[in-house]
Amino acid sequence: MDAETIVHVIRGSLIESRHRGHIAVVDHQGRLMHSLGNPEIVTFARSSAKLLQAIPVVESGAADFYQFSDEETAVICASHSGEPAHLNAVLSILAKTGLGPEYLQCGVHPPFDSAASRALAERREEPSSLHNNCSGKHSGMLALAKFMGVPTDRYLSIEHPVQKRMLSAVAEMADLPESQIPLGTDGCGVPVFGLPVSRLALAFARLSKNDGLSKQRSEACNRILRSIRRKPFYLAGTNRFDTRLIEVTGGRIIGKMGAEGVFALAIPERGWGIAVKVEDGAKRALYPTVTETLRQLHLLNDEETAALQPFHTPAHSNWQGQNVGRIEPAFTLKSSAAN
Amino acid sequence: MDAETIVHVIRGSLIESRHRGHIAVVDHQGRLMHSLGNPEIVTFARSSAKLLQAIPVVESGAADFYQFSDEETAVICASHSGEPAHLNAVLSILAKTGLGPEYLQCGVHPPFDSAASRALAERREEPSSLHNNCSGKHSGMLALAKFMGVPTDRYLSIEHPVQKRMLSAVAEMADLPESQIPLGTDGCGVPVFGLPVSRLALAFARLSKNDGLSKQRSEACNRILRSIRRKPFYLAGTNRFDTRLIEVTGGRIIGKMGAEGVFALAIPERGWGIAVKVEDGAKRALYPTVTETLRQLHLLNDEETAALQPFHTPAHSNWQGQNVGRIEPAFTLKSSAAN
Repeated sequence: MDAETIVHVIRGSLIESRHRGHIAVVDHQGRLMHSLGNPEIVTFARSSAKLLQAIPVVESGAADFYQFSDEETAVICASHSGEPAHLNAVLSILAKTGLGPEYLQCGVHPPFDSAASRALAERREEPSSLHNNCSGKHSGMLALAKFMGVPTDRYLSIEHPVQKRMLSAVAEMADLPESQIPLGTDGCGVPVFGLPVSRLALAFARLSKNDGLSKQRSEACNRILRSIRRKPFYLAGTNRFDTRLIEVTGGRIIGKMGAEGVFALAIPERGWGIAVKVEDGAKRALYPTVTETLRQLHLLNDEETAALQPFHTPAHSNWQGQNVGRIEPAFTLKSSAAN
Repeated sequence: MDAETIVHVIRGSLIESRHRGHIAVVDHQGRLMHSLGNPEIVTFARSSAKLLQAIPVVESGAADFYQFSDEETAVICASHSGEPAHLNAVLSILAKTGLGPEYLQCGVHPPFDSAASRALAERREEPSSLHNNCSGKHSGMLALAKFMGVPTDRYLSIEHPVQKRMLSAVAEMADLPESQIPLGTDGCGVPVFGLPVSRLALAFARLSKNDGLSKQRSEACNRILRSIRRKPFYLAGTNRFDTRLIEVTGGRIIGKMGAEGVFALAIPERGWGIAVKVEDGAKRALYPTVTETLRQLHLLNDEETAALQPFHTPAHSNWQGQNVGRIEPAFTLKSSAAN
């Protein structure tokens, strides 16, 4: 099964560019309900795994011990935009664990949010590792290391007890042996986990319907989704799709983007998980594909779809601000035979 | 014929993302020598057409009348980086035609070159339309309008005499009736021309071996290639592929990128033209594909290929500067049966 067309990039009278991809919709028992392309293709979950990587922080007892708020739990799962509220949440996590920003090893990039980035430049300040979109995840990993009483200086290594727990949680949620999970290094330096798209979807299905999991695991999953549902701003930020999707659906749907065109969603009302991989990794194809998938599954009503229009069928503007084309979904999900 | 895989994006032990595309290598009579994917797919030539759009400026006599230098002729063909030398060339074109920067209708974006962009910010200056990568092309269009004695205020319109000559030159070089060329609007507001990839390649083959063209056309083609060969910096800029390719090959090969993953090359030594379209429009797949195409055709020797390595097989770094993967070509050109 090859990747299939998911998005057309239209200019004037032509389809100028095309994106292909893979989609898997599964229930919490791993049954494939709908798909497109090859649901078994293996790709790195990248930042979409952050909700799974938050599980050890919560189920270990660290989140309770340090009394992490909903904002803090959400920012641990975030690819945040580096806005002031995000930085405050990360600083608060670090303060509660007795650490400072100098412990973060995520590297530095300017805030995703253009207003935050401009404000920094106007104050003639350099961005710091706090602004890195992954600083919440890193502060959660540091909190877990501190709580476990293990060194905090080598927490990026796959040999470190924190990363071993991350791999173990991802493997269990995806119902795969750890040895079958290919590894790589993320933009922020931590190990990334290779999963078939269908298994990433399964992990999110079990996040949303966790009656087959241990009590501790189940409670951790519920707490993670609840914190994000209550504080969606902390998962991404101003005008970001992940935040808007939760706001628009009143928290019925929770999804998380990852670099290289990955997205994973938890659909608690159906006990489903959904995962998307854009074959070429393009972000511009991701949100049209996710929104259209939800629309076709009747998980978004017309009003919700309309509210997400800027992500569903974004216009293409030129430097004069003139509308010269648009990006639009171009696929129909296939129902699985067994479904 | 569907698009074929051209580039792998590798992280750790996985191919994380894949790009597909179309390649056509043709001689000046339009014979397909080598290809990949569908050489007949129609796409907008975007900025790769700038060398063709410079033809009317030269063959009309405007370039002679205004005594355009090699730098000025090259910048008319450029997607330049907005560096000081580029701006000076554009300002000089405008001055020679008795116009000012306020006549440019290309819109504003910050310089592509990060040093130029930073210098602007440090002087607390806003970018202007001069910094737009297309300002050379626009100044050439304005010069042509002035030389033709037609109004300079509506030169973006497809109905304007300047744009009619652009369409006519592109159609003639591609050996297509104008009516068969789909139109759209470019990022800088001018009409863009839809061509089969093989016809974009043909237009560049005829640019490089123009013995079948009129004397005026032929001289214009030669002057355009000669100016670019002498002043490759003015076609793009510091550390840009288009500039480096000409420098590294001593001007044996002249190529021009376009937005949405388009590239066209003139190969005078063989009288060939080459065109590439990345299906999904990704720039990151473009230079690996072009360099590998030239390598497979023995148009680059080992030393030249090595000099272009940062474009051929670029490394993937994370925020800590650690090498976490690479981008590499993943195709073999097909020889055409007739060849």
